[in-house]
Amino acid sequence: MTQPRYGSQFGPDVTFLGVPACTWTDPASMAGADVVVLGAPFDGGTSHRPGTRFGPYAIRTTDYLAHDGSRPSLALRVDALRDLDVRDAGDVEMPPGDIETALQRLRTAVAAVAATGAVPVVLGGDHSITYATGRGTADAHGDGRVSMLHFDAHADTGDIEFGSLWGHGQPMRRLIESGALRGDRFLQVGLRGYWPGPETLEWMAGQRMRSFEMTEVVARGLTACLDEASAIATDGCDGVFLSVDIDVADPAHAPGTGTPEPGGITARELLDSVRRICRELPVVGVDVVEVSPPYDHADITAALGNRVVLEALSGMARRRADLAGRQLPDPAAPLLSDR
Amino acid sequence: MTQPRYGSQFGPDVTFLGVPACTWTDPASMAGADVVVLGAPFDGGTSHRPGTRFGPYAIRTTDYLAHDGSRPSLALRVDALRDLDVRDAGDVEMPPGDIETALQRLRTAVAAVAATGAVPVVLGGDHSITYATGRGTADAHGDGRVSMLHFDAHADTGDIEFGSLWGHGQPMRRLIESGALRGDRFLQVGLRGYWPGPETLEWMAGQRMRSFEMTEVVARGLTACLDEASAIATDGCDGVFLSVDIDVADPAHAPGTGTPEPGGITARELLDSVRRICRELPVVGVDVVEVSPPYDHADITAALGNRVVLEALSGMARRRADLAGRQLPDPAAPLLSDR
Amino acid sequence: MTQPRYGSQFGPDVTFLGVPACTWTDPASMAGADVVVLGAPFDGGTSHRPGTRFGPYAIRTTDYLAHDGSRPSLALRVDALRDLDVRDAGDVEMPPGDIETALQRLRTAVAAVAATGAVPVVLGGDHSITYATGRGTADAHGDGRVSMLHFDAHADTGDIEFGSLWGHGQPMRRLIESGALRGDRFLQVGLRGYWPGPETLEWMAGQRMRSFEMTEVVARGLTACLDEASAIATDGCDGVFLSVDIDVADPAHAPGTGTPEPGGITARELLDSVRRICRELPVVGVDVVEVSPPYDHADITAALGNRVVLEALSGMARRRADLAGRQLPDPAAPLLSDR
Amino acid sequence: MTQPRYGSQFGPDVTFLGVPACTWTDPASMAGADVVVLGAPFDGGTSHRPGTRFGPYAIRTTDYLAHDGSRPSLALRVDALRDLDVRDAGDVEMPPGDIETALQRLRTAVAAVAATGAVPVVLGGDHSITYATGRGTADAHGDGRVSMLHFDAHADTGDIEFGSLWGHGQPMRRLIESGALRGDRFLQVGLRGYWPGPETLEWMAGQRMRSFEMTEVVARGLTACLDEASAIATDGCDGVFLSVDIDVADPAHAPGTGTPEPGGITARELLDSVRRICRELPVVGVDVVEVSPPYDHADITAALGNRVVLEALSGMARRRADLAGRQLPDPAAPLLSDR
Amino acid sequence: MTQPRYGSQFGPDVTFLGVPACTWTDPASMAGADVVVLGAPFDGGTSHRPGTRFGPYAIRTTDYLAHDGSRPSLALRVDALRDLDVRDAGDVEMPPGDIETALQRLRTAVAAVAATGAVPVVLGGDHSITYATGRGTADAHGDGRVSMLHFDAHADTGDIEFGSLWGHGQPMRRLIESGALRGDRFLQVGLRGYWPGPETLEWMAGQRMRSFEMTEVVARGLTACLDEASAIATDGCDGVFLSVDIDVADPAHAPGTGTPEPGGITARELLDSVRRICRELPVVGVDVVEVSPPYDHADITAALGNRVVLEALSGMARRRADLAGRQLPDPAAPLLSDR
Amino acid sequence: MTQPRYGSQFGPDVTFLGVPACTWTDPASMAGADVVVLGAPFDGGTSHRPGTRFGPYAIRTTDYLAHDGSRPSLALRVDALRDLDVRDAGDVEMPPGDIETALQRLRTAVAAVAATGAVPVVLGGDHSITYATGRGTADAHGDGRVSMLHFDAHADTGDIEFGSLWGHGQPMRRLIESGALRGDRFLQVGLRGYWPGPETLEWMAGQRMRSFEMTEVVARGLTACLDEASAIATDGCDGVFLSVDIDVADPAHAPGTGTPEPGGITARELLDSVRRICRELPVVGVDVVEVSPPYDHADITAALGNRVVLEALSGMARRRADLAGRQLPDPAAPLLSDR
Repeated sequence: MTQPRYGSQFGPDVTFLGVPACTWTDPASMAGADVVVLGAPFDGGTSHRPGTRFGPYAIRTTDYLAHDGSRPSLALRVDALRDLDVRDAGDVEMPPGDIETALQRLRTAVAAVAATGAVPVVLGGDHSITYATGRGTADAHGDGRVSMLHFDAHADTGDIEFGSLWGHGQPMRRLIESGALRGDRFLQVGLRGYWPGPETLEWMAGQRMRSFEMTEVVARGLTACLDEASAIATDGCDGVFLSVDIDVADPAHAPGTGTPEPGGITARELLDSVRRICRELPVVGVDVVEVSPPYDHADITAALGNRVVLEALSGMARRRADLAGRQLPDPAAPLLSDR
Repeated sequence: MTQPRYGSQFGPDVTFLGVPACTWTDPASMAGADVVVLGAPFDGGTSHRPGTRFGPYAIRTTDYLAHDGSRPSLALRVDALRDLDVRDAGDVEMPPGDIETALQRLRTAVAAVAATGAVPVVLGGDHSITYATGRGTADAHGDGRVSMLHFDAHADTGDIEFGSLWGHGQPMRRLIESGALRGDRFLQVGLRGYWPGPETLEWMAGQRMRSFEMTEVVARGLTACLDEASAIATDGCDGVFLSVDIDVADPAHAPGTGTPEPGGITARELLDSVRRICRELPVVGVDVVEVSPPYDHADITAALGNRVVLEALSGMARRRADLAGRQLPDPAAPLLSDR
Repeated sequence: MTQPRYGSQFGPDVTFLGVPACTWTDPASMAGADVVVLGAPFDGGTSHRPGTRFGPYAIRTTDYLAHDGSRPSLALRVDALRDLDVRDAGDVEMPPGDIETALQRLRTAVAAVAATGAVPVVLGGDHSITYATGRGTADAHGDGRVSMLHFDAHADTGDIEFGSLWGHGQPMRRLIESGALRGDRFLQVGLRGYWPGPETLEWMAGQRMRSFEMTEVVARGLTACLDEASAIATDGCDGVFLSVDIDVADPAHAPGTGTPEPGGITARELLDSVRRICRELPVVGVDVVEVSPPYDHADITAALGNRVVLEALSGMARRRADLAGRQLPDPAAPLLSDR
Repeated sequence: MTQPRYGSQFGPDVTFLGVPACTWTDPASMAGADVVVLGAPFDGGTSHRPGTRFGPYAIRTTDYLAHDGSRPSLALRVDALRDLDVRDAGDVEMPPGDIETALQRLRTAVAAVAATGAVPVVLGGDHSITYATGRGTADAHGDGRVSMLHFDAHADTGDIEFGSLWGHGQPMRRLIESGALRGDRFLQVGLRGYWPGPETLEWMAGQRMRSFEMTEVVARGLTACLDEASAIATDGCDGVFLSVDIDVADPAHAPGTGTPEPGGITARELLDSVRRICRELPVVGVDVVEVSPPYDHADITAALGNRVVLEALSGMARRRADLAGRQLPDPAAPLLSDR
Repeated sequence: MTQPRYGSQFGPDVTFLGVPACTWTDPASMAGADVVVLGAPFDGGTSHRPGTRFGPYAIRTTDYLAHDGSRPSLALRVDALRDLDVRDAGDVEMPPGDIETALQRLRTAVAAVAATGAVPVVLGGDHSITYATGRGTADAHGDGRVSMLHFDAHADTGDIEFGSLWGHGQPMRRLIESGALRGDRFLQVGLRGYWPGPETLEWMAGQRMRSFEMTEVVARGLTACLDEASAIATDGCDGVFLSVDIDVADPAHAPGTGTPEPGGITARELLDSVRRICRELPVVGVDVVEVSPPYDHADITAALGNRVVLEALSGMARRRADLAGRQLPDPAAPLLSDR
Repeated sequence: MTQPRYGSQFGPDVTFLGVPACTWTDPASMAGADVVVLGAPFDGGTSHRPGTRFGPYAIRTTDYLAHDGSRPSLALRVDALRDLDVRDAGDVEMPPGDIETALQRLRTAVAAVAATGAVPVVLGGDHSITYATGRGTADAHGDGRVSMLHFDAHADTGDIEFGSLWGHGQPMRRLIESGALRGDRFLQVGLRGYWPGPETLEWMAGQRMRSFEMTEVVARGLTACLDEASAIATDGCDGVFLSVDIDVADPAHAPGTGTPEPGGITARELLDSVRRICRELPVVGVDVVEVSPPYDHADITAALGNRVVLEALSGMARRRADLAGRQLPDPAAPLLSDR
C-alpha cells in the first residue's frame, strides 16, 4: 500500500497551475508521466534571507490566468501542460532544522521520479536542494552521465558554512565530490560579485568547471556563451540538468530572493535562455530555486519563477514535437503569419 | 446649461500636472484645446488584480517636479504643456459594477472631445476602456479611418470572460467587430506568454492583424518592428490611435499592474517608442492603461505612466513644430551643443 | 446532470482549511452538511479601494496550521471542522463588471445551500454581496423570518452611488426594501465616522433599525450592547443572519480593507462577539466581507477574517453540543482545570 | 496686491476634503472664516525617520468619501465642514534645510490667521513646527493667554539636538522660554519610554509643567487625566492650543511616524479625547503632527490624522451649537433614537 | 586562550543599544556583569513564516534614540543600561539547518553566562531556542529550581513536528521532559486559537501546568492572572525565567512574527506585565522570541521587542534599587511630582 | 587631543563591511590609509522624497556576505578591502534643518581626508552634499585641478529652490560658481526627463559643460560616451571626482530614491561604468548619493549603492596593481581560465 499524497508542507494542497496530482511514493500514480513536479519547500540552507520554503507554493500558483492545466506558448506554439503529461507530486516533507534528513528525502523522491522515465522538475527552496536534485537524478541516470547547466549569480562551490558542509553555498562542490556530476561538464552562467575567493576558485579550476562570469557574458553576448556551454554540456553526457537560481536575474527582475547581487541578466534573457536550452538539449531534470516570497514585491519574482518552469516545459514539448517531425509554426516567423 | 465639472471619481479634483481644467460636457470649455485629458477610473473589467481605478489619479500626480503646467523635454526641446494647449476634463464617472454603462459614458466623452478637434488622452483604468476610447475616436473620425498601435503583453482579443463580452481581455475584438477599427490596421507590439490560445489566434489572423510577439521583437530589434508597424498604420488611414498597456514593460519596470507577464521591454524602450511614434505619426488619440497603484512600489509604475503621457505629448508638440518648420535643436545632437 | 465544481474564480481550487469540497449546483454533494462555505469573490461594488475579490481565497487559506480540516478551539473545547459537517462549495462566478448578474448568481447559490438545511457561510467580497446573502437566506427561510446582526463601521443603507442602486454602501437598504429582512430586526454594531448623512439616518429611523454607534459602545460597553441586540434579534424571528464587515475592527487590526475608519473595536472584541453570538443565537447564515488582500500587511486582516469564520463555526458547534446536553469543559474555567 | 495662493509645496494643490481655498497673505480671502487650515510640510526637524513633509497632503486627502466639503458626524450630529466656515490656505513654503526660516514663515502665517479671529488648524510636518504654531497663536492672543494641551509620547522639551536649538524634540522648551506659553499651563498626555533624562525632567518640573505619563493614564484612566488637564488648561487662560503628535497613539494605530514608541493609547481613545476637548474647551489653535506617509501602511496613520482633524472640527462645531442653545440630538443617546 | 568575539551571524557586529561588548567563551569579559545579552539568530525551528534569524539584530538596533548605552525609564525612574552592568556577548553561531547543534551551542552559552551570576537575556530567534535558554539556565541554577513565566499565543508543548522532536512548537515539552523545569511551576499567559488539540492538553494537565487562555485573561483581567501566576512561580523555586513570545501581542501590535494569532493582548499590556514581573520577581533569565523582520512593518514589532527587553532590564534595575532601599520617585506618582 | 569617533548619526556605529574605523578629526588615525569612507547622512536638501539620511547606514551594511573586511572581485581579481587600506571615519554630524552648517562640516571633513592623500569615498545623503565633497576635494587638490564625472538623471545645476541657494538640485552650479571645479571639465552622463528648462541649459552651455542625455547614450552607446567623457576629464586635470547619483539607474533598478526618473541605465551598466572609470582614471574622490531606504524594496537600491562603492574600490585596487605591474589574471579572459 502506498502512502497518501503529502500535499503542501506549507499551505493548502495545490498543483502547478492545475495539472493532475500524483504521489512520488506511488509509482503507479506517475506511470506515463513525461514530467513530475516536486516541491522542495526548504530554506534551512540559506546563509542570509530565508523564505524560500514558500517558493514551491508561490511558483505553482502565481499566474493571473485560470489554473486549468493549459498554457499555449505564443513563442513556441505548443501547450506544454497538454502536449506533455505533466503531473505534480506535491511537496517532499523537509524538516527546516534538519538539512541532512531533508536532502536525503528529496534525493530519494527525485530518484524515484527519474526512475520512471519522467523528468523531475523541482521547485525550491534554497539552492542547497540541488545537492539532492542532482544526486537523485544521477542515481537514476548514472554517475557522470548527466551534465549541469547552472544559472546563478553565485558559484555555490563553497566548502564549509556556519560550520556545516550543507547549505545553499555548497551544493555544487558536494555534487562533484560525490561523483554524481563531472566537474568538466559543469557549466555556470551569470556569476558576478565578490564570492567566492581565490581558494575556492582554485578548486573549481582544478575540477575543470566552466564558469561564465557576467563580464564575459556582457563582452561576448549571452548567445555565444550559451552556444559554448551547450556544446560542452552534451559532449559525452546523456542528459543535461538545468538548475536555475532566480538570482541570476538582476534584483530589479527578482527582488524576492535571499542573496540578491546587482548586475544580473534580465528576465527576458533568462526566459529566452531556458526556452532555448530545453528545446535544444536533452534535459533530464530541472530545478528552479531561491524564490523567496517574503522579499518579493507584487509577486514579480514568483511570476518569473513560474514562467521559468513554463518555458522549460514548453521547450521540452517543442523539442519532442520537433523530434517527432510534427509540423508546427516556425517560432522565428511572425506570430500570425502562418494562419 | 452645461453640467458642472465632475472632477475625480476617487480622491480630490486635480489636473494632469497642473494644466487648466475643462469639462467634456461643455464644448466651450474645450474650445481651442490641442489635447484634452480624460480619466477613466474603471477596474471592473480586470480579470485578475484590480486597482486601476486609481490609475488616473496616480498618472496625473506622480511627478517630483512642481505641478505647474510646464515640462520642457530634454530629449525633444519642446515644452508640451506650454507649446500645446493641454487641458484636463477630469474623470468620467464609471460605475465599477456596470461595465456597459461605464463604457458607454466614456465613449460619449471621448467622441465629444475628438469632435472638437482635440486629441483625447485617456488615463485608465483597465484595458476594457479601450473599447470606449477606440470606439469614441472612430465616432468622430469615421469607422475604419483610424489605425491602432497597441503596446501590450496581451492581445486583448478574447471573446467571453467570466460569461461576459466585456472586460480587459476583449476590447480589441469588440472594436474590430464593431467596425470602428480595421483588423488589418491593427498593430500589436510586445505580446508574450501563454495567452491567447489557438482559436483566438486564428480569429486574429483572419482579421489580418499584425502582432509583434517578443520573440520577433528580440530577433529583429524594436526599431525594425516599429518601422514596419508605422508603415502599415499610416497606409490608408487618417490617423493613429496609440494604446499603451503599461504591462508591455517588464514587471521590473511596471510591477503595479494587474496581469504582469515577465519578459517585456524596458521603460527606456517604451518611452523611446512612444516619443518616436507621436513625433512621426498623425496620432489622434492616446490611452495609457493598467497602472494599478495598490500593486505599485515606490510609485515607479505610476511614474512610468506619467512619463508615457509626457513623451506622447512632447512627441506631438515636436511634430507640430517640425511640420511648422520651426527651427529647434536637433534631438540627435548632444544636449548642450546648440547653445 | 449537475455542473462540475467551479472552484476558485481567482487562483487554484482550495477549500476552507481543507474541509471537503462540494458543489452548490449539486444538492447531493451537500446532503447532510451542517455548513456550506461559499466564496463571493466580487469587488465591483466597492466605492473606494478594491481587492476583496481575493478575499475568499485569503480567508480560506490564511492560517499557519496544517490545512487538515481540524481546528480544536481552546476557548470552546470543540473542533468545529470535525464536530460539524463543513463543506466548501467553491466560489460563485461573479463577473466583476456586472453587479446585477453577480448578485443574482450569489442569491441563487445561497438559497440553494440554505434550502438543504445547511448554514451558508459566505466569504466576500465587498459588502454589496450581502444583498444576495441576505436575500438568498430569506428565500429559503421566508421573508421577515430572519433578523440581521450586522458588525460594521458603516450603516450600508445608502440609496444611490455612482448612479447605481447596487454597491457596498447600499445592501441593507435594498434588503429591507425587498422585504427579505425587517428593519426593526436589523441590528448594527460599530458604526462611526461621517457617513451617512441626516437623510439616510431618517430613513433608517423610519425603518426602526437599531444602530449601536461606537460612542454608545464605549459608553455602555460592548457586552451590554450585544445583550440588547441579541434580545431584539430573537424577538419573533426564527433565525439570525450574522454579517461581519471586517472594517468594524480598527484599522490597526484590519488594515486590509477598502474603507478603513479609525476608532473601531479590537480583534479580540470582534472574535469574542462572534463566538458568543454563534453559541447563543440560532444563526442561519453568515458572511464575512471586505477583506482586501492588496492593502493587507503580513496577512493580519486575512488571518482575522479566517478566525472570524472559525469562531462562528466553533460557536455553532458548541451551541449544538450544549443543546444536545453534551458534557464539555466549561469555557469559563481555566484551560487545563478539567483534565 | 496680495500674493497668489501658494498651493502645495509637494504635489498638486488640494484643500482639506474639498473645503474652499483661501490665501493667508490675503486677509480678505479669510474674512469670515471660522477655521483656516494651513499645511506645514516640514521634516527638517526630525531626529530620526523623515517623511512628514508629505503629512499635510496625506491628512488633507486620505478619506474614502467624496471630497465634497461635507462630513456629518455620527457622534456629534453636526457637519463641521458646513456648520463652520472652514477654508484651506494651502501650504506655507518651508525650505527643508533651513529650519529657522521655515519656522519664522509658519509663525507669521499662523499669526496672520489667528489675527482674523479664525482658528488655525495646522497640518504638520514634524513637531518642530509647534514652536511656530504656538508662538504665532500667542502673537495674536497674547503671551501667556493660551494654554497648551499636548498629546504625545515624548515631552519635546529637549535643549540641543545635533548641535541645534531647533528640532522636533525641543519645541516645547523654546515655546516656554519665549514666554509665549506658560509652563504651568502646559499639559502633556501620553508620555512614555526612555526620554528625556533626569536633567530635562528637572527643567520641566521647574516650569511646573504637568505631564501625564502612560503609567498614570493606565492607573487613573484617561478620562480622569483629561478632567484634571482640562481644569488646569482653562484656569486663567483665554484659550487652549491643542497639539496632537500622532505618535501618542500606539504604533499599531500609527505606524507611519518618525519615532514610534510602543505602549500608547488607541485610535479610539485619541479620537474620543480630541472630540471631547474641542467640544468642552475654548480651543484657539490646533496642530496635528508627525504623520509620515513613507512609513505608513494602507494609509492608516494618514486616515487617523484626517479623523483627528475632523473630530477637532466637529467638536468645535458642536461647541458652537451648544453655546448657541441649538437643539441637537444628545450624543449620549442611541444613534437613531431621536428620529 | 579564549576565542575571539563572534559578533553577529547576520550583519555587522553591534551591541544592544550600544552597551559594552563581551564574549561568552571568555568568562573574564563577563566578570561583574549583571546582565549579558546573547543573540540566538535561529529560525530553523519555525513551522511557518521564517525570518527570526534577523530578530537579534533588529531587537538590538530598532530604536530612534542614540545608541549610547543609556535609557532612563520614565515609568520606573532608573536607567537600566547604566544602573546595571549590561554587556552584549554577540550572537551564538547557530547553523540554520542543524537544530540540534544549534540548540546545544546556545545551551552551553546560556549556562556559561548564568554560571557567572549574570542574568542571560537572549534575543531570538524562533521559540525553539527556549529549550536551550531554559535548559542552560537550569544547568547553572539546578533542575527544578527555576520556574517559567511564559507569554505566548501558543502552548509550545507539541511532541513531533515535520517528523522532528525539535521545533518552535515543542520546546516547553522538551524542557519539562528533560527535568530542567517543573510542569507545576510552568505558567502560560495569553494562549488562544486552535492549537494544541486534546491529546496535548491532556499531557499539559498531567504535568500540572497552569495556562491562562485569553478567555480567562479577558474575564478575570490580566492583573489578577499575573497575581496568581506570580504566586505560583515563586512557590518553592529560586528564580523565574521569563520567556516572551512576541506573538502574545495581537497581530496589530506585532505583525512581524511567524504564526500570528488574532485576539492577543496589547503592546501596552505586554510592557506593563514585563515591567511588573521583573520588578517584583527574582528573574534569572529572559528570552524574547519570534520577532520576524521580513514580515514587520515600519519596524513596529522590532521596536516592541526592543522595549520588552528594556522594560525587563528597567524592572530588574528598579528591583535592585528597591531591595537596596534606594530612595527613588514612586512610579505611582505623577511624572514630575517629585521634583 | 582629538575628538572621539562620532560613529553613526542614525543607528549603531558600524563601518563599511567591517573595515577598520578611523576618525577624520584625528589625522593619525588615517595615516597610511588609501581610502577613507565618510557618511553624509543628510536629506535636508531634497526637493521631494526624503530618506537619504539613512543612506550611509544602508550602503555600509547591505550585503549578504560576512562583514569581514574582505571582498574578492570576480571581475577584477583583486580584493579591494584588503589590497587597499580602507578605513571608515563614520558619519559627519549634519543637522537636518541647517544645510549650510551641514555642508560646511562635510567640506571640512572631506578636505581633511583628502589632505592625508587618501581618497575620500562619501556615502550620501542627498545630492546637495556634492557641493561639500567637490569643494572639499578641491580644497586639498587645488581649484580647477579636479574634473567631475557625474552620473545622474538630473543636471543638478539649478539656481534657487524653495527660496534657497542650497539643495540637491543645485550643487553643480554652486561648485562651478565657487571655482572649485571647471565647467568645461564637468561631464554628466544619464540626464533625461523634463528638467531643467532652457534658462538653466543656457547657463550650462555657457559653462561649456558636457552632458550626455540618455537619447545620446542610447544612440551612440554608453561605451562611446564614456570614452569621450574620459578623454575630456583627464585633459589638463590632475584627478577625477566621481559622483554617482543612484537615480541614474532606471527606477526598476533603484526604486529607493527621492526623484526617480524612468528610462535610465541598468544596474549592470552602472557597475561596469564605475569599474572601468576607477580602473582607468586617476580618481581622487567619490560620492554615492540619493539612496533612500524608506522607498527601497527588498534593499535592492541599497545593495546597488553598496556595489557601486565596491566596484569603485575594486577598480582603484586593480588600477594600482596594473600601474605597479603586478601580474593578475586578465579580466577579459574566462573566470577560471588562468588557474
